[in-house]
Amino acid sequence: MISPLLTDLYQLTMAYGYWKLGIHEREAVFHQFYRKHPFGGNYAVACGLATLVDFLNNWRFSNDDMDYLHTLQSPNQKPLFTDDFLDYLKTLRFTCDLAAVPEGELVFANEPMVRIKGPLIQGQLLESTVLNIMNFQTLIATKASRVYQAAKGDTVLEFGLRRAQGPDGALSASRAAYIGGVDATSNVLAGKLYDIPVRGTHAHSWVTIFPDELSAFAAYAEVMPDNCVLLVDTYDSLAGVSHAIEIGKQLSAKGAKLLGIRLDSGDMGSLSITARQMLDQAGFSDTQIMASNSLNEYVMADMKEAGAQISVWGVGTHLVTAFDQPALDGVYKLSALRDEQGTWQYKLKLSEQTAKISHPGIYQIRRYPHKDVMYDIELGMSEDLGDSYDVLIPIFEKGSLVYQQASIHALRERAIQRVNDFIKAHANRTYPVELEKRLNHLKQQLILQVKTHGK
Amino acid sequence: MISPLLTDLYQLTMAYGYWKLGIHEREAVFHQFYRKHPFGGNYAVACGLATLVDFLNNWRFSNDDMDYLHTLQSPNQKPLFTDDFLDYLKTLRFTCDLAAVPEGELVFANEPMVRIKGPLIQGQLLESTVLNIMNFQTLIATKASRVYQAAKGDTVLEFGLRRAQGPDGALSASRAAYIGGVDATSNVLAGKLYDIPVRGTHAHSWVTIFPDELSAFAAYAEVMPDNCVLLVDTYDSLAGVSHAIEIGKQLSAKGAKLLGIRLDSGDMGSLSITARQMLDQAGFSDTQIMASNSLNEYVMADMKEAGAQISVWGVGTHLVTAFDQPALDGVYKLSALRDEQGTWQYKLKLSEQTAKISHPGIYQIRRYPHKDVMYDIELGMSEDLGDSYDVLIPIFEKGSLVYQQASIHALRERAIQRVNDFIKAHANRTYPVELEKRLNHLKQQLILQVKTHGK
Repeated sequence: MISPLLTDLYQLTMAYGYWKLGIHEREAVFHQFYRKHPFGGNYAVACGLATLVDFLNNWRFSNDDMDYLHTLQSPNQKPLFTDDFLDYLKTLRFTCDLAAVPEGELVFANEPMVRIKGPLIQGQLLESTVLNIMNFQTLIATKASRVYQAAKGDTVLEFGLRRAQGPDGALSASRAAYIGGVDATSNVLAGKLYDIPVRGTHAHSWVTIFPDELSAFAAYAEVMPDNCVLLVDTYDSLAGVSHAIEIGKQLSAKGAKLLGIRLDSGDMGSLSITARQMLDQAGFSDTQIMASNSLNEYVMADMKEAGAQISVWGVGTHLVTAFDQPALDGVYKLSALRDEQGTWQYKLKLSEQTAKISHPGIYQIRRYPHKDVMYDIELGMSEDLGDSYDVLIPIFEKGSLVYQQASIHALRERAIQRVNDFIKAHANRTYPVELEKRLNHLKQQLILQVKTHGK
Repeated sequence: MISPLLTDLYQLTMAYGYWKLGIHEREAVFHQFYRKHPFGGNYAVACGLATLVDFLNNWRFSNDDMDYLHTLQSPNQKPLFTDDFLDYLKTLRFTCDLAAVPEGELVFANEPMVRIKGPLIQGQLLESTVLNIMNFQTLIATKASRVYQAAKGDTVLEFGLRRAQGPDGALSASRAAYIGGVDATSNVLAGKLYDIPVRGTHAHSWVTIFPDELSAFAAYAEVMPDNCVLLVDTYDSLAGVSHAIEIGKQLSAKGAKLLGIRLDSGDMGSLSITARQMLDQAGFSDTQIMASNSLNEYVMADMKEAGAQISVWGVGTHLVTAFDQPALDGVYKLSALRDEQGTWQYKLKLSEQTAKISHPGIYQIRRYPHKDVMYDIELGMSEDLGDSYDVLIPIFEKGSLVYQQASIHALRERAIQRVNDFIKAHANRTYPVELEKRLNHLKQQLILQVKTHGK
């Protein structure tokens, strides 16, 4: 369970300010989106909503939290918050409307992934946690979909626990990686918590405790005849393959099967070619060759290009930390606020960089086969091009969950299907995302207004 | 609380194998170490021990865990584990000796950070979790110490929550970053859990909800007169500085103080120079200039070199994800195992890369002023050079905690002191880490033995 204190202090000081000014319950709209596609790609796979739903369902400050907040002081040692504000905070519950891109659906730069509409104070307090959850899981699901594509139908196993960014950096990553397309994880707790298949056999330590590799393999085959993948590189990979074949024959004689061998060092591409020949010649053409060790989508593509005979890929560090880009640049912006009369006032943040100017309005994404159009739900669409669907779907209405989450397996299927279809249609081209005409006009007016009034 | 299921499945299948072969209680020694200094540096700051201690104090499989493990199957749908093994697993408690480098102490490539000595099955089952915890926190503490050094005495605030790798990717990072030298975090939950100072004022959203920047600043100063740092870049940074000065005068008139302004976009180095002049001319020479936005130790050093007038640095994404190297290459190796007669057999894993050959033995690190010597605690040291201390200290003895963790503030002081001293003495030179003579001889013999017997 994630505590509501998992937020930045400035959300609480602003919340206090809104409350003190009496504007905390004004209806506001916030959107979460990212600005740049990760990994130099042209899409992202939305992920994290289940964790966010869980967080919001339990969003309430505890007595313990209050005790802590009472201790906080300004730099000149005055209490940061008044007692009556903290009393108010304790009564807060999540009562917003929340719409989101479902997990496993594609999303593109600058499109809202989460829209929160409700009391200003709630939207503000939720910002940091929404970003933390959505940024990371979306990043990893996207990375996993790239690894899945590079595998071209081979099995991919996620092995990242040991070098992930902390316990949850591993767990959230295992979940997101499965949704993004990997087949199983080595992380047992992730298997238990999220219903992800788990896989694993033995490590180098197993081999080193026996007098030699052959007796280590024999012992493993004896105790685990139904789950026998032998790691062959503890001393010398090809000698290891010979030993594995010897054990494979013993397994066959007993009606069991050598499922695979695993390479974990050296020039695994060329080792796999020799190993494949050795296995085939010995009658083990069903035995799979697995590789692990600093793999990522680029290395996998290169190895496949060079004819590597690997059909199971164990991908760890590069997948779960998104090594080449370990953070998604997601942001969360206020885009509309009702004034005292109840009229929506659209809001934007200017920036010297045009791309960083935020979008004013209350957004929906209309997805057509060959483009997305972002429109404002109050202004509507100025034209109907048919054959389309709205990507943001209602998750909470006035704080009540109205969305039934699909199984993680269905989310994974959706992600794989969506990415396959997308790559077929758009390959590496930029997918067009347009701003609906009326909304664009309004945005330009607002920019002009802010600039000429010289805020 | 971290579950013991936060491990890789192969640890459990190997544990099952050891148990089935009746060797699971043989005394074994495992060491955790990393191979390459992170960030191209020449040291690391050890971190993560408190989390590890917490994990080990509560290391027991629950009924729930057992129910899950009962469901696991091999690829041909047979139960992966037998009932009697799972019954045994449920009785397991941590009973090992554990020695570790204390948090905030320096550690170097290939030196053991954690040594576990006890039943083989326990050392094996703990591998993945030890690595997960120690790799990440050590990585971030090291990154933070680099940022601290780059700040040259300025204040550094950790702002990483929103783009950290999940909830714990933020929390563990806040903890490690504080130990590594940052002054405070924006993460309120980290403040509560770890007794880290928290800091925060307001964001762009505060500014955009008001009709203009000046009224937004005035409102903030009114509600938070004792914690007033104004973010000036929502529309135009230098206009924002003028507005902040106007508000600063109003605060001064009321006996309060404009603590600072914050820059968050644009050319912050040169903006800070102009802002400093404007503030000084208006009599606000005490008002600090803070910067945030994609900062890291390299950017900070460049900005300071160019004369930036910034005295508070908000560092987020690059710090908490260790953006330029998001994983430490930590490993965990079996290095000794008692045979049936109770004699220690030293173990090593060969590799085509000499640097990846593991160390056999039972290690301690002797730290001299100008070098470290790794020695075997059974073989001892062949010579005494005086003025030294042993770096690994006892944490658990036969499963009982014998170590009193210092406060997080003391750990931070130690880290800062150690890094300062180290940089003064060794700057960017490689710090020498030697293998004690007798141990080195034994290792070479063992390599030869393994190679000639062609395992």
